[in-house]
Amino acid sequence: MKIKTGNFRIRSKIWIEDKNGKVLFGPGRLKILEAVVRLGSIHAAAKELKMSYRAVWGKIKNTEDRLGKPLLIRQIGGTSGGGSELTPLCKNLLEKFSSLQAHVENEVDNLFEQSFIN
Amino acid sequence: MKIKTGNFRIRSKIWIEDKNGKVLFGPGRLKILEAVVRLGSIHAAAKELKMSYRAVWGKIKNTEDRLGKPLLIRQIGGTSGGGSELTPLCKNLLEKFSSLQAHVENEVDNLFEQSFIN
Repeated sequence: MKIKTGNFRIRSKIWIEDKNGKVLFGPGRLKILEAVVRLGSIHAAAKELKMSYRAVWGKIKNTEDRLGKPLLIRQIGGTSGGGSELTPLCKNLLEKFSSLQAHVENEVDNLFEQSFIN
Repeated sequence: MKIKTGNFRIRSKIWIEDKNGKVLFGPGRLKILEAVVRLGSIHAAAKELKMSYRAVWGKIKNTEDRLGKPLLIRQIGGTSGGGSELTPLCKNLLEKFSSLQAHVENEVDNLFEQSFIN
């Protein structure tokens, strides 16, 4: 079948699940943690993403529980007024997930062109 | 980072969008049309998928409108009491989409193992 590339495009989404089919990590958590890195705290990330602190914290906590390891190092109080930093494991997870995501998007684009355009 | 394959798995989803970001085709429509092929009518497919006839018909109609081509040949009345058959274009779309989906799932599994397990 012929589909013009200009008219349609393929989209893809990847996420990681645990044994029980619960989300360990996905694009939503990637966005949250990238905002935490950039803004320095869960509070600021939640504000930017227009989510409640509780919702953002809950998602991070879920992933930590399912992974059995911390994602954030929480700094309470101090002159900076507290904030959060990513653990090395979390940085690694972010890097690998976003690179996997980019790789998959590329692959999917290529496969779509190969199978649908010809 | 080390993730045990037995503990976590990667999931993926692909879908096709039109220029306006509206869904042209995806796993839901694949499931609907596969049920129409198997059961011979939109009515029977809707019943099996626990969806309303209107919802199922609406999704098929949406894709037909966005594609500018029919997906179903509707047979009204007759001894069989009416039913629907897939157009050759629709059969082709189903085949290509499900094969692309399987291919992507495989690729994603491999990429996940390569990047996360080591």
